[in-house]
Amino acid sequence: MSKIRLKDIDTRAPHGIDKDKTKEELKAILEELEDLQNLLYAESKHSILVVIQGMDASGKDGLTKDVFTSMNPQGVNVTSFKVPTAEELAHDFLWRIHQHAPAKGMIHIFNRSHYEDVLVTRVHGIIDDKIAKQHMHAINDFERLLTHNNTHILKFHLHISQKEQQSRLQERLENPKKMWKYNAGDFDESKLWDKYMDYYEDIFAHCDEVLWHIVPADQNWYKSYTVASLLLKTLKGLKMKYPERKG
Amino acid sequence: MSKIRLKDIDTRAPHGIDKDKTKEELKAILEELEDLQNLLYAESKHSILVVIQGMDASGKDGLTKDVFTSMNPQGVNVTSFKVPTAEELAHDFLWRIHQHAPAKGMIHIFNRSHYEDVLVTRVHGIIDDKIAKQHMHAINDFERLLTHNNTHILKFHLHISQKEQQSRLQERLENPKKMWKYNAGDFDESKLWDKYMDYYEDIFAHCDEVLWHIVPADQNWYKSYTVASLLLKTLKGLKMKYPERKG
Repeated sequence: MSKIRLKDIDTRAPHGIDKDKTKEELKAILEELEDLQNLLYAESKHSILVVIQGMDASGKDGLTKDVFTSMNPQGVNVTSFKVPTAEELAHDFLWRIHQHAPAKGMIHIFNRSHYEDVLVTRVHGIIDDKIAKQHMHAINDFERLLTHNNTHILKFHLHISQKEQQSRLQERLENPKKMWKYNAGDFDESKLWDKYMDYYEDIFAHCDEVLWHIVPADQNWYKSYTVASLLLKTLKGLKMKYPERKG
Repeated sequence: MSKIRLKDIDTRAPHGIDKDKTKEELKAILEELEDLQNLLYAESKHSILVVIQGMDASGKDGLTKDVFTSMNPQGVNVTSFKVPTAEELAHDFLWRIHQHAPAKGMIHIFNRSHYEDVLVTRVHGIIDDKIAKQHMHAINDFERLLTHNNTHILKFHLHISQKEQQSRLQERLENPKKMWKYNAGDFDESKLWDKYMDYYEDIFAHCDEVLWHIVPADQNWYKSYTVASLLLKTLKGLKMKYPERKG
């Protein structure tokens, strides 16, 4: 596979995609997903792990809201991975992640994930290239372990332009309903954009046990539609059946 | 490395080893271990994972008692892995194990372990050879992950003769203080001895990310001495130092 170059990938929907029509389609997909999630839970043979990565303000929270809100919360979990606690740091980097691996029948969404440990840590020089290689190798091993246990992993990188990010961060400064999302360091972090892109591309190249989906994310409607479609395709592919009555 | 053949390995102490002298030595080792465990905890750079495997009545509980009782319980944890619960079975086989990986500074003892998942499950035909290979590969990956995080893994197989096992099981039937340890299926399970030996040997051959120690275990005093000595050697090898006063 040729190397993914983020610069060469559009952050917007392909030309000719109609916004309103796509939104209608998304609605229909979400209805189908509701049924399939029920079936996933009832059958309890498979599980789904949705990994959402992306720069600040790339729309990770919004995606979770758009795509998963209508599903039965009993079968859907979300974990937002923050800066590791002291207890988490006293273990290997996958320790806190593994605890949240989905049980059979469940959909689990990781809002940020184990990939932060080969990303923000590299950008800030907390780990060197040798450790990063080790970690990326361990991530492949880990994802293989889950895959062998019928966990279907969907990895999404929400791909926005730096310009779009700037405008969203600016909105967080100005819009009273979004101010809570603003962190003091956000604009400083944005200056490290190119480094982030390099390390993301390194992740895509090395952590290939499971396919990465690069999702054009400048427009939220197209981002949510893309993710929901891929989730639908995955769930349909499982050929699930409601279990027969016992006895 | 040549294949380990359990039949060729003695289950008793080498000729000429004096019981009383060994017991005295064990006492001295345990005193040293107490100090080193304190240092391990204070420094919090390393952790120790002690994996104890062995047939029924091979003396796993007794070993834990003999070697670890005198250590500060704040820095020592023991997990006895039993038949997996429904929740555990709904995850990959390493999920429940990973949760108990030792944090830095800690000694964690696994009384039975992830190796049961490539042992009892094979003896009873619950998993086939293909899955067993997958699992053993995953175990190597997992132990590498821990090792890279400064977890020093010591794997002990308590090696007893079938004759010694029979006599210990018989004692469980007769000795009122040991009856609680007897399970209805114990003698039936013992009939599968040769199968267990084969699958143990397969584990030693494939799960070689970390060295296995085959401990002659027909005599408890020699078993405890052997394990304590190896633990001492490991801890000494870490060249630990008490952290300097802050500020």
